[in-house]
Amino acid sequence: MAFLTREEMLQALQEFETEDLEKALQAAQASKLAREEQFYFLHYFLQEERIEDTENNQAVLTIPITDMTLNPIQMVHGGVTALLCDNAMGYASFLKAKRSGVTLNLNVQYHKPGLGKYLIAKADVIAEGSQMNGTRCEVRNETGTLVASATATFYHRK
Amino acid sequence: MAFLTREEMLQALQEFETEDLEKALQAAQASKLAREEQFYFLHYFLQEERIEDTENNQAVLTIPITDMTLNPIQMVHGGVTALLCDNAMGYASFLKAKRSGVTLNLNVQYHKPGLGKYLIAKADVIAEGSQMNGTRCEVRNETGTLVASATATFYHRK
Amino acid sequence: MAFLTREEMLQALQEFETEDLEKALQAAQASKLAREEQFYFLHYFLQEERIEDTENNQAVLTIPITDMTLNPIQMVHGGVTALLCDNAMGYASFLKAKRSGVTLNLNVQYHKPGLGKYLIAKADVIAEGSQMNGTRCEVRNETGTLVASATATFYHRK
Amino acid sequence: MAFLTREEMLQALQEFETEDLEKALQAAQASKLAREEQFYFLHYFLQEERIEDTENNQAVLTIPITDMTLNPIQMVHGGVTALLCDNAMGYASFLKAKRSGVTLNLNVQYHKPGLGKYLIAKADVIAEGSQMNGTRCEVRNETGTLVASATATFYHRK
Repeated sequence: MAFLTREEMLQALQEFETEDLEKALQAAQASKLAREEQFYFLHYFLQEERIEDTENNQAVLTIPITDMTLNPIQMVHGGVTALLCDNAMGYASFLKAKRSGVTLNLNVQYHKPGLGKYLIAKADVIAEGSQMNGTRCEVRNETGTLVASATATFYHRK
Repeated sequence: MAFLTREEMLQALQEFETEDLEKALQAAQASKLAREEQFYFLHYFLQEERIEDTENNQAVLTIPITDMTLNPIQMVHGGVTALLCDNAMGYASFLKAKRSGVTLNLNVQYHKPGLGKYLIAKADVIAEGSQMNGTRCEVRNETGTLVASATATFYHRK
Repeated sequence: MAFLTREEMLQALQEFETEDLEKALQAAQASKLAREEQFYFLHYFLQEERIEDTENNQAVLTIPITDMTLNPIQMVHGGVTALLCDNAMGYASFLKAKRSGVTLNLNVQYHKPGLGKYLIAKADVIAEGSQMNGTRCEVRNETGTLVASATATFYHRK
Repeated sequence: MAFLTREEMLQALQEFETEDLEKALQAAQASKLAREEQFYFLHYFLQEERIEDTENNQAVLTIPITDMTLNPIQMVHGGVTALLCDNAMGYASFLKAKRSGVTLNLNVQYHKPGLGKYLIAKADVIAEGSQMNGTRCEVRNETGTLVASATATFYHRK
């Protein structure tokens, strides 16, 4: 793929169905934003929205449920839910530590199938250390159904 | 985005850089394959390769490390590693149960940064039940460095 | 030991220090209570107190921190904290299910050393199913320090 | 209890059944050993045996299954299994680090009821770091049935 020219790629794209082109455009836009804003591609591609809920001291992340995030049995892929949990808790930990960190461990419990329009993950730091933060997260859909809950520890080198 | 016509989308794509178009084409191809093969989009988009290693009774999954899977500090995003673990163990559990299932819980320990050319996850079922399988997985890069290890339980309704 | 007569055991006990006899008496009392009340030995031996906090819909368990529960570096043994978490969440799950169950998985994050006079674990069911309950728990000492947090899933056969 | 004299305690012990006295004697012996050998009480009380299996690079721990370790439904208490896992993995980590450490997180999957004569936990360090070790453990009974599997991370301050 990397060996196609720009023109060849644009030509190849013309062969696809409309729904394929929608994802193509989304990927192109995510790629451009990731480069411009020095942030990670999947944030844009999965259309994550981040909110710092300072009143409740929580990091909130949402992603729409689309056919990109479904598993073969038409509910949100467990791995996508895990990724969302990691992102939400990593964001919560970052807001406390004020510097980037890495996940040391991640534990996700799946309670109900991920069905509906979007998932919302609310994360908070429950134990703050000088280099390690313990975090917790709940993932619900738009009707409030608890889809998953998770914990993780993040390491922020001093 | 969904309100653009086919022509408008193709026109919009012409405005992007070559590296953006590469991801666009990859997304279009993944979308087409997911529809044709009734499988999940991210399998194709992340370029997962699946191998059933019958000799060692393991399910093996690989993904290339690309700028699509990196986090802001240039190592594989912890959530992507979690997704890979979930996929590898879910595949191992599927091979035993011979029917689709869902993740009940997922636990990932991160040992070393995900750096290199690709990640390879080797998973096996360590406890087989009538409806629930306990699984385990190790994720290494191409040099053999243990990047992460994980466990998960899958539920396959009878 | 099983081959000693009653008299020989009582005679052997006379050789011990006072602090050893205190534990001996505690073990004898726990053994008697476990038999009479058909409950588990460690509940009495570790002096667990159980409270059903109906107002907050939580199961609350306390244990005193004694030299029986310490590890070699004089903080509560991680395994004892895990046992306390399992008990507290199992109790919470039992209160919902109204029948006994078994632990499917247990995940404990350790935040601060277990120091002080006692540990208090507050557990609640966050996802109730027909056969499986997802639970969560926080363990604090008497000053309110968060020592550990945990999640677990319990299975109650119908 | 602490306010009874030595004589009063010995007198109180005479009132118990033989099976209660067996546990009393076991507690007294464990208390004495813990004091003399500066190790933790539960190690002796639960009759843990520790083996360093240098050939397989594993730490092995066994405990007998007795009425002290059962839960109300007559299988090994999940919390006891968790404690055994923590001990086995902590021991494995100690053998590598050559200094004492603390558990950062513990994850236990329960596969089959803990039934039989004894439990044997085999643990090994799968990822060794300068301050943190990732470990893994399997718990079987004397017939080889996989009762539980676990992972944990230990922190050994430099």
